Amino acid sequence: MADPVGVAVVGASGYAARELIQILLKHPQVKITAATSRKDEAPRLDALHPSLAGRIDLACEVFDADQIAERAKFAFLALPHTASMAVVPELRARGVKVIDLSADYRLSDPKIYQEWYGHAHTDPEGLKEAVYGLPELFRERIPAASLIANPGCYTSTSILALAPLVAENRIERSGIIIDAKSGVSGAGRSPKLTTHFPECNENFSAYGVGRHRHTPEIDQVLTTAAKGRGEAVEVIFTPHLVPMDRGIFATIYATPHQPADERELIELYRSFYAGNPFIRVVDQLPTTKDSAFTNFCDLTIRVVRGRILVLACLDNLIKGASGVAVQNLNLMLGCPEETALY
Amino acid sequence: MADPVGVAVVGASGYAARELIQILLKHPQVKITAATSRKDEAPRLDALHPSLAGRIDLACEVFDADQIAERAKFAFLALPHTASMAVVPELRARGVKVIDLSADYRLSDPKIYQEWYGHAHTDPEGLKEAVYGLPELFRERIPAASLIANPGCYTSTSILALAPLVAENRIERSGIIIDAKSGVSGAGRSPKLTTHFPECNENFSAYGVGRHRHTPEIDQVLTTAAKGRGEAVEVIFTPHLVPMDRGIFATIYATPHQPADERELIELYRSFYAGNPFIRVVDQLPTTKDSAFTNFCDLTIRVVRGRILVLACLDNLIKGASGVAVQNLNLMLGCPEETALY
Amino acid sequence: MADPVGVAVVGASGYAARELIQILLKHPQVKITAATSRKDEAPRLDALHPSLAGRIDLACEVFDADQIAERAKFAFLALPHTASMAVVPELRARGVKVIDLSADYRLSDPKIYQEWYGHAHTDPEGLKEAVYGLPELFRERIPAASLIANPGCYTSTSILALAPLVAENRIERSGIIIDAKSGVSGAGRSPKLTTHFPECNENFSAYGVGRHRHTPEIDQVLTTAAKGRGEAVEVIFTPHLVPMDRGIFATIYATPHQPADERELIELYRSFYAGNPFIRVVDQLPTTKDSAFTNFCDLTIRVVRGRILVLACLDNLIKGASGVAVQNLNLMLGCPEETALY
Amino acid sequence: MADPVGVAVVGASGYAARELIQILLKHPQVKITAATSRKDEAPRLDALHPSLAGRIDLACEVFDADQIAERAKFAFLALPHTASMAVVPELRARGVKVIDLSADYRLSDPKIYQEWYGHAHTDPEGLKEAVYGLPELFRERIPAASLIANPGCYTSTSILALAPLVAENRIERSGIIIDAKSGVSGAGRSPKLTTHFPECNENFSAYGVGRHRHTPEIDQVLTTAAKGRGEAVEVIFTPHLVPMDRGIFATIYATPHQPADERELIELYRSFYAGNPFIRVVDQLPTTKDSAFTNFCDLTIRVVRGRILVLACLDNLIKGASGVAVQNLNLMLGCPEETALY
Repeated sequence: MADPVGVAVVGASGYAARELIQILLKHPQVKITAATSRKDEAPRLDALHPSLAGRIDLACEVFDADQIAERAKFAFLALPHTASMAVVPELRARGVKVIDLSADYRLSDPKIYQEWYGHAHTDPEGLKEAVYGLPELFRERIPAASLIANPGCYTSTSILALAPLVAENRIERSGIIIDAKSGVSGAGRSPKLTTHFPECNENFSAYGVGRHRHTPEIDQVLTTAAKGRGEAVEVIFTPHLVPMDRGIFATIYATPHQPADERELIELYRSFYAGNPFIRVVDQLPTTKDSAFTNFCDLTIRVVRGRILVLACLDNLIKGASGVAVQNLNLMLGCPEETALY
Repeated sequence: MADPVGVAVVGASGYAARELIQILLKHPQVKITAATSRKDEAPRLDALHPSLAGRIDLACEVFDADQIAERAKFAFLALPHTASMAVVPELRARGVKVIDLSADYRLSDPKIYQEWYGHAHTDPEGLKEAVYGLPELFRERIPAASLIANPGCYTSTSILALAPLVAENRIERSGIIIDAKSGVSGAGRSPKLTTHFPECNENFSAYGVGRHRHTPEIDQVLTTAAKGRGEAVEVIFTPHLVPMDRGIFATIYATPHQPADERELIELYRSFYAGNPFIRVVDQLPTTKDSAFTNFCDLTIRVVRGRILVLACLDNLIKGASGVAVQNLNLMLGCPEETALY
Repeated sequence: MADPVGVAVVGASGYAARELIQILLKHPQVKITAATSRKDEAPRLDALHPSLAGRIDLACEVFDADQIAERAKFAFLALPHTASMAVVPELRARGVKVIDLSADYRLSDPKIYQEWYGHAHTDPEGLKEAVYGLPELFRERIPAASLIANPGCYTSTSILALAPLVAENRIERSGIIIDAKSGVSGAGRSPKLTTHFPECNENFSAYGVGRHRHTPEIDQVLTTAAKGRGEAVEVIFTPHLVPMDRGIFATIYATPHQPADERELIELYRSFYAGNPFIRVVDQLPTTKDSAFTNFCDLTIRVVRGRILVLACLDNLIKGASGVAVQNLNLMLGCPEETALY
Repeated sequence: MADPVGVAVVGASGYAARELIQILLKHPQVKITAATSRKDEAPRLDALHPSLAGRIDLACEVFDADQIAERAKFAFLALPHTASMAVVPELRARGVKVIDLSADYRLSDPKIYQEWYGHAHTDPEGLKEAVYGLPELFRERIPAASLIANPGCYTSTSILALAPLVAENRIERSGIIIDAKSGVSGAGRSPKLTTHFPECNENFSAYGVGRHRHTPEIDQVLTTAAKGRGEAVEVIFTPHLVPMDRGIFATIYATPHQPADERELIELYRSFYAGNPFIRVVDQLPTTKDSAFTNFCDLTIRVVRGRILVLACLDNLIKGASGVAVQNLNLMLGCPEETALY
């Protein structure tokens, strides 16, 4: 077997990074050669994440693009937004391919980025070349990409659930309702009152109603998926917090152009996603637990009083972050898409 | 102080009965004089519910209408549907006023009852006299009622959230989307696989999509609330199961007849519910935990991309069952509506 | 009815304060006339605790002993340790009776306080007069007290579970093992990584092994309970964190002087605690849920392979903090001990 | 690569079976060729366990020893006790090697089996040949075994935590206290009231105090580990139920023969378990979450007031059941012990 390919994990302290490392440790063709954290003390990875004890013997270092370029062909960025676009140009200038898990390269229009994230985009050139890393829709563009904008977790759920209906022009483009529910790990690893255990345990709440930053990302990618047919997509996206660690569930309500048939739609979805190993169009109602800790997205369709309901689930940390990142890596490496993901 | 009024709890083994007993124990004007359970062994109440140890010294008995009529002026029925309508005529014949927590007297049309519950209604006479026990909408009819159809938990949440918009004819009547989420106690106390801890813990799922029996109840009561103006209400109701004990959260999407204003709608709600001690129209997004273990229903309104969103919460066992039952009792007794409920 | 007595809640932002306010709102003989918080902005109580919406119309103020003395005869202090002893002398100088929920007045020896809390005690005079507020052991001293050291939650559970065995000199004094488990609200309301939902949910862990500050408090009070008979008590106390909101469970292992009999011990406990309305000596194994949201402490005894096991539960925020505080208040006011606590 | 070895999963409907199948699907040298369930309807595996959708295309069959022998060299038995010993002789008579996850072959003395399980042992011959499948203590006997008694989850935790102290004769043999806590999946997949979500969620309780069937198993294996030195081991074992899916935590209290030193003991453990890939002797206090979903057992030691405390965790379904089963299979196949387990 050939030497493994070196990969770096930039920003190793959060949950997506931890999941990513666990997946990469199972990958026969890569080796984690560098990890960085903001902390000066250069903690060992198993000090940051005790679950990694005995699995990897590596200390974090402070980010240095030269160091990373020397040891890694690919860098996964698990940084907060704005921090990513500060280092991407440095890495790309040194020939490192980047899979960016932040939001910095997902919105193709820098004005929309500024509107929703409150900062000017500092790497518009990178933005032009970034490929949106959702293999089920953009698989053919990923192998040659040098910069992957890895999609958001709510976004992937919503887009995968709606793409067939939009691409086949079955539903009205505005007023699509996405009622989404997420486990708490989606809020990151920094303690705050809303994610303090006695606050969010035994509690269910909505947040960011009408203002969540995944809204324009969903609009944009679904509009792209429509391939020029029909108007721009405009969703009403309502996120909620569920007292569980992981998992996203989206209940989606769309108005069909013509009376809809449940079985026909399920077949449409199966046909649309044929050949995609991580999409499971199921007959029963999906539950988050069935796709938790996996890279699967589970979907089904119902028709109720003339509306189409799509019910979709995935694991926000895997299919919604680190799993799809490795799926993208696999496509870039030319190895089987499922490698390390089953 | 006058002698306390005797009340009976018929069907004492479930969660709503347990909560009811805890509330009644705080009520200065009533005394629990009888409790029944299906079990032959006549268990003590604190054997059925160890949390009641030291609070009440009463053994369950097998249901006997004469016995109950001798000791109680009011009977709360916490029985499964169909079991309620089997005993209600017996109790009413003996002059016992009934507050029925089952679904048996909620749907005024026996055909609709049969359609959704799969059984013919056996007490159509009682059905005609039953008053729907939602004090916020039907307060004036409750004091004189001899039979209260205590509303369902999803139903109360949905109706309280939508009544002002429907009564004031602000929204379209069909295509109202109620995306509802419930804690697991809403599924009752009988163990089954879907509520087995390792199945529903760390899990989020939908169930009964398009087929939940609270659908016609919501349609009927909201249509009544419209007081003859406009078409019949037709909701799309989607229930979900949240891994927590108690609480219902409804995210409701409605299409306004005219462009809507958030502040104006919040004021509309405050005005509509003025004088109702258990409705809190809040500015912030409500959370189930803030109304858990209380008889409050918390509500707010948002306008997103032209749609009206109503977000509503209550405790399914209290405001959604036993608390509103005592609220009805208070109205029937003529004592302050809040008695035993703060 | 006489005018209600004014009470102040000093330090209103945490969980114990919230529970305390909820209990006090049900108390017919007191009125909350002041609340303080560290925040400059003087938030309303229902902004700090949205669950209080519609229940109390009061804004927090910055602590001012004169202001409090003017309006309140009693002050409950829900402050961090060291903050309490900074304000207690000021309040007592103005004739305000204090019920202190912090640890500052629990250890009668200031050297032991310094050893475990890392600060010199700044109010040794107050310390001398403080009465340890565990009514089941020190009821007769409470009515006349001007300063109550309200016990810790782990402490109350452990002491109530062991007092009969120690007072009756049934067990060896050293090597008593207290394996204690607490819900997460016991760690307070300040967010930190260990209580961040995705860290402590679905997790069970020990902490502070051999170093928890409740250890010397348990030793001291149990030694006092022995009334001079036998050696000083020395416990091995191991706290654990349980992924639930509230509740403490202690599994206690003691070595009897003579072969022990389960039934005889249960009767000993019932006799020891006769007349104490909040101690329930049960036959079955207790569970935290049966005493959650109540002021009860549930206990039972088992004998296994020659050891005595005591299993004890209570709600850390109620019987372990705010409930016992009101129980103390009731004794000081001369009203029934159960007032507002059922 | 050689043809994969056929393996059967007998009793496929429970949690341990599901985890086992997920692990076996990652194993490069085996193929699941048969699965059985009690149900007559021969459900597909992904109907029993929807999480397996898209992973395996196999329907359950009714148990038939000939059928299994034809297709499988190894059979994993995930049956209730007594059901296992009914089929083990049939399988062994046909040359199928058996890894039995039930308790039927764990207690070497059939009288003790009868005493604790209430049934006579029907396969005393098999019992004589069974090897206790805890690789860390009995690795050398496993490769040649034809029948493996796979250890219980509480048992493995307790034995791994205590073996070094017992084998090195450091502690007193009686009065060892094992205060154990388990996630709810340890109670199996059959719904019952104690594991109904609203009963065990937000609850902590003890059960089977002094009567749990893992007690004699721990006594026996630790006595064996002592290799004839000293008296028989006699533990006081107290199991508790934690509101979480998976994980076992044991807090163990032992009395040393001589004053103990924490660092020396940690080194003793590291030396004792050197070469064992799934034992992690850590410095920090372990938590169940760090070993959840892995085959690791995490351990540490503390000395408190003269007692030795061992704190140990593992995942009850993996290292406590299906993971160690595959570890045993690996040893029997002669492939690396970690295969499919990282």
